[in-house]
Amino acid sequence: MKIKKVILASGSPRRKELLTWAGVSFEIIISDIDETPKKNESPHLMVKRLSVEKAIAVGAQLILSNRDAVIVAADTTVVSPKGKILGKPDDLNEAFKMISELQGKTHQVLTGYSIVQVKSGKILKPISKVVKTAVTMRSLSVEERRFYLSQGESMDKAGAYAAQGFGMVLIEKIKGSYTNVVGLPMNEVLSDLNKINT
Amino acid sequence: MKIKKVILASGSPRRKELLTWAGVSFEIIISDIDETPKKNESPHLMVKRLSVEKAIAVGAQLILSNRDAVIVAADTTVVSPKGKILGKPDDLNEAFKMISELQGKTHQVLTGYSIVQVKSGKILKPISKVVKTAVTMRSLSVEERRFYLSQGESMDKAGAYAAQGFGMVLIEKIKGSYTNVVGLPMNEVLSDLNKINT
Repeated sequence: MKIKKVILASGSPRRKELLTWAGVSFEIIISDIDETPKKNESPHLMVKRLSVEKAIAVGAQLILSNRDAVIVAADTTVVSPKGKILGKPDDLNEAFKMISELQGKTHQVLTGYSIVQVKSGKILKPISKVVKTAVTMRSLSVEERRFYLSQGESMDKAGAYAAQGFGMVLIEKIKGSYTNVVGLPMNEVLSDLNKINT
Repeated sequence: MKIKKVILASGSPRRKELLTWAGVSFEIIISDIDETPKKNESPHLMVKRLSVEKAIAVGAQLILSNRDAVIVAADTTVVSPKGKILGKPDDLNEAFKMISELQGKTHQVLTGYSIVQVKSGKILKPISKVVKTAVTMRSLSVEERRFYLSQGESMDKAGAYAAQGFGMVLIEKIKGSYTNVVGLPMNEVLSDLNKINT
């Protein structure tokens, strides 16, 4: 990659892992933005907007400390078979409901990502895209759902499941990018990072 | 699952992990069969045959020790975009050639699996199937290929890459079962295990 180092504007251990696996040097700087969906906002618009807001918020911090940098931010959401946005569950009951909505059917996972360059105190026009992956979850008995939830990886995941680890065996098939389901569509992000001239 | 415990006829840490994640109780017994492909044998036939042979070999061991059991065996292979079977590479040079054949194109990953029941000293008719997943690998520069190989996970993998860990970020998109690429199509295997009456 041409870029020597990027700033990952995300605290997600999964995104960190994906960038590490790809051999990208990075530093993590997290912004504290309001992630509440707007009324009547489409999932597509929401993940795109949140990824831009995350990147710009970190960009502002960098400008204040006079640093040039390339920032990568992302937001991932799960859209249920009925079209509902499934965020991170508040408790195990909500997680159980989410898994029950997803099991035996196909849902969409959307990741919006933004790449923002800060140069000489200015924030350049962001590259901002949304990648969609179709995930079919296998039919799960109530016992299987409970077993999965007992593994404790659901609470900080959109849709209450993780595509790696225990959650991998919930998935019957996927169509599209797998890393997108994990939290960052690596093919698209790496390809866009390669287009940036620093 | 109705079956209390299965025998996994495979030493693969990935298959072990997948069964563990699904909450299946199992024990590992490995057979030592000749895994050489037969001349002019199709990849489909090869993975099916090898999975049956692995399961039956373990079945024979169990009969000798008077045990009833349900055995799961599998064989995974990668078929290059040109239709060539890619097994485990012999050395880093061969691994580099394999990754170079796969990058930027779509290939097929085939797992043959067999479920064999041993009951009262008899081996019942195996359930034996092949699951195919299409994997598109992103375009990789020579530098990226070398970086991947330097991670050291290529040598015991068909096609010289692993679908989990570092290899996950080589994959642009997939169509089908992801666990099939890892080494065991969990939806199909769990569903077949549930059909067995012990």
